[in-house]
Amino acid sequence: MTTSTRTEIIGILGGMGPAATADFYAKLVATTPGTSDQDHLRTVIWSDPTIPDRTEALLGDGPDPTPWLLDGSRVLREAGATVIAIPCNTAHAFVPRIADHIGLPIVHMIGEVARHLTTLSPRIRTAGLLATTGTVRAGLYQEWLDRFGIRLVLPDAGNQDHEVMTAIHAVKAGTYDDTTTALLTRAARRLTEQGAQAVVAGCTEIPLGLPADAVDVPLVDPALVLAQALVRRATAENTAA
Amino acid sequence: MTTSTRTEIIGILGGMGPAATADFYAKLVATTPGTSDQDHLRTVIWSDPTIPDRTEALLGDGPDPTPWLLDGSRVLREAGATVIAIPCNTAHAFVPRIADHIGLPIVHMIGEVARHLTTLSPRIRTAGLLATTGTVRAGLYQEWLDRFGIRLVLPDAGNQDHEVMTAIHAVKAGTYDDTTTALLTRAARRLTEQGAQAVVAGCTEIPLGLPADAVDVPLVDPALVLAQALVRRATAENTAA
Repeated sequence: MTTSTRTEIIGILGGMGPAATADFYAKLVATTPGTSDQDHLRTVIWSDPTIPDRTEALLGDGPDPTPWLLDGSRVLREAGATVIAIPCNTAHAFVPRIADHIGLPIVHMIGEVARHLTTLSPRIRTAGLLATTGTVRAGLYQEWLDRFGIRLVLPDAGNQDHEVMTAIHAVKAGTYDDTTTALLTRAARRLTEQGAQAVVAGCTEIPLGLPADAVDVPLVDPALVLAQALVRRATAENTAA
Repeated sequence: MTTSTRTEIIGILGGMGPAATADFYAKLVATTPGTSDQDHLRTVIWSDPTIPDRTEALLGDGPDPTPWLLDGSRVLREAGATVIAIPCNTAHAFVPRIADHIGLPIVHMIGEVARHLTTLSPRIRTAGLLATTGTVRAGLYQEWLDRFGIRLVLPDAGNQDHEVMTAIHAVKAGTYDDTTTALLTRAARRLTEQGAQAVVAGCTEIPLGLPADAVDVPLVDPALVLAQALVRRATAENTAA
């Protein structure tokens, strides 16, 4: 397998937030098998942190980010991208508004996470979710887990606000520390107490503040699942060529 | 300072290697002051790991990467980039071949490192360099340090090969471990024994294998210096606007 026969160019629609985009690209590189630079996938990243806040838009408090997402997708397509990945859970609420207009397939991070949960052993019947209030309200995970018959448990409204969103804002501000980890650990443990056999770190900022060993059940990192799906896709394409 | 008044779009010509590009973007994000996504700089990254090996080209053993660098720069310009950064020391040997053709300013990483060395206290009269054989042979640091009256010390040919290049290849292969760190630490200490008052980690892979506290003198990370130069430039532009 050498890259010279690969035609896939990964397009990353990022900046939501920028640290999560950097983290996602590092995961994509680490997930790609290979021993030299030339084994890796060509990638183009449009990282636009000025995209209006997705949660605020979903709660009716801010501008619709759809035009920014369309612009970024156009930049990626013109740069030669053959597939789009969006390493931001909340932004997936806007995928139905852009999917038919960008002329490229999107590897759907939340769909990939739902599929990934079905591959875990023992079989996951209940999963917990730590995500932005926007992602929760938009029902993004609810919709996909329903399709696979997995029950979803969530923090109550108070903890969603005081624990999860506080931690996410700390990561976005670059001020996260042990307090952030403690908040997220407590929120995750409440989910396992409600029966969650796995916890989805459903905002790309969360894995930056919550180490995998902080909870007793598998902590699923959607960015890593998305990276693995992209590598599988590029490899399969290569084999087929 | 809000991003809405910023017109700078950072173009990163990357993939050399891809892990170093991810690391550089993470440093750019971490260096940018701000508390929300929207305070960060719009960035477009072209990460093409298929760019032929720069050291091999400089040693006459491989194809000239210049056409790939020109292609990548064109992608970045068409995507709206207003400035180009190249987070690969060795690739700077090809900057004179592309600079006049890409229609955008390049913030020169090696020039920025030389300038940065003159700001350290006590004043640096001798600096050591850990870099690829390509960077060393092309005389990139020699040329810039000469301009600022700083003497350059280098590993001897055997250690350059057996310590430095072995470690760089391990990082590129994703197989670096304590042995890699030991190799680089030994190489860095030899430079300080020759009088180096600072050591330049002059290949973007090196800081991934050599922690800053492994040497007794300042370890200068060109990727971080480049990130800081880009942030200063974007901020100054914003103030002037």
